[in-house]
Amino acid sequence: MRSRRLKFVVAYDGRDFAGWQSQRHGNTIQDQLEAAFRKICRSRVSVIGAGRTDAGVHALGQCAHVDLEPGRLAIQRWITALNGTLPPTIRILRGRFVSPNFHARFSAKGKVYRYRILNAVIMSPFELGRTWHVAAPLDRALLKRAAKLFVGRHDFSNFAATGGKFTEDTTRTINSLRVITRGNLIELEFAGSGFLYKMVRLITGTLVRSALGKETLDAIKLRLEKPELNAARFVAPAHGLYLVRVKY
Amino acid sequence: MRSRRLKFVVAYDGRDFAGWQSQRHGNTIQDQLEAAFRKICRSRVSVIGAGRTDAGVHALGQCAHVDLEPGRLAIQRWITALNGTLPPTIRILRGRFVSPNFHARFSAKGKVYRYRILNAVIMSPFELGRTWHVAAPLDRALLKRAAKLFVGRHDFSNFAATGGKFTEDTTRTINSLRVITRGNLIELEFAGSGFLYKMVRLITGTLVRSALGKETLDAIKLRLEKPELNAARFVAPAHGLYLVRVKY
Repeated sequence: MRSRRLKFVVAYDGRDFAGWQSQRHGNTIQDQLEAAFRKICRSRVSVIGAGRTDAGVHALGQCAHVDLEPGRLAIQRWITALNGTLPPTIRILRGRFVSPNFHARFSAKGKVYRYRILNAVIMSPFELGRTWHVAAPLDRALLKRAAKLFVGRHDFSNFAATGGKFTEDTTRTINSLRVITRGNLIELEFAGSGFLYKMVRLITGTLVRSALGKETLDAIKLRLEKPELNAARFVAPAHGLYLVRVKY
Repeated sequence: MRSRRLKFVVAYDGRDFAGWQSQRHGNTIQDQLEAAFRKICRSRVSVIGAGRTDAGVHALGQCAHVDLEPGRLAIQRWITALNGTLPPTIRILRGRFVSPNFHARFSAKGKVYRYRILNAVIMSPFELGRTWHVAAPLDRALLKRAAKLFVGRHDFSNFAATGGKFTEDTTRTINSLRVITRGNLIELEFAGSGFLYKMVRLITGTLVRSALGKETLDAIKLRLEKPELNAARFVAPAHGLYLVRVKY
């Protein structure tokens, strides 16, 4: 009998976990999900995610798939059973059975990430662990101008973590980079076909530096035009980053 | 030399604390604040709040005062020193030196509370401990109609916790009770001159019951008109409640 492939969308508060990817001694999202499936299925199941998220990074809509033994359990029963087993900081939002040709990682056509910054002298107790606190005032007009430079197709070598395992081609396309401000809160929303390791956090780090007047627009342009520069990298902290959506 | 009275506004995430009021073995907001002042002043200081909040209840703008020994420390220095000593889940937002006639509790003219409800089958990992999760669908039109009944001057005996220490007069005035909805989130915003013990949570409990079709508008009216009923009470959980503002 053929197995059934289940595609599901999962949200998590990354604070309590050592990232997505399974680790031998790690408390990761993948570990938690596999343990929940194992408890319900009574057999080992591999969870394949659309991509890894680092320790502390959150997800509003990570996507993953698993192959389940044939059975008659309806999708809603699966979701209820999984959420009843998972810690409340990880929630399966929805799911459906899909063709075995679907692959959470290889079928992905694009991703949306959001990076949250609280630009205020005093940090809100309610934003701890979920928003980057930048106390010094940011020039929002400058932030928006700098953000525009990243949109389009570029070689993002200077905005990727060295040592990250990515394909050799470091060219990626950012379809949009929206800067949304609400009071003290600044949200950067990145949409693109794919992102290099730590690319969103490295772009955010540079955008904040430019909005603090520490980096000129010309210096940013140069780093986008000359991938061979291997320039200094400024990484925004993990806890401000959210994987919003995976597009298929 | 006369002491100086400092009025300040404080926000806290109530999750980690045993409420506002100092306790012998308790980890309360008042205890934390007094410890921070003691560390900075090197003498014991009493913090007087506008009112108590129960364990788990949050504040966006609780107000309090302390009497400090004369000194030249400017207000911003005080705030910085206090926030450097307090846990990050408690933040002093602002403060100023006031007349000794000001009293955080007795000078208060009114308060604004907000109660947050997430009305969705699946609870968001990001609303844990800060929003009441109601999975069954709420009738929002009914909720708004029921909310209107509470506005104005009433004897709120049936919406006060028995055993709470309040003045004998149980008549209070609710100036407004706004129902604000944003997607799955429902916020109830109460403004009034004063509230009885657990009154906001007891009204919220009844509003949710009415929006679930478990209580008629007539039954609510009866409880507002007949304080002697001593009707059954339904209390919404502490973690959905926020003290937003104290008016002077």
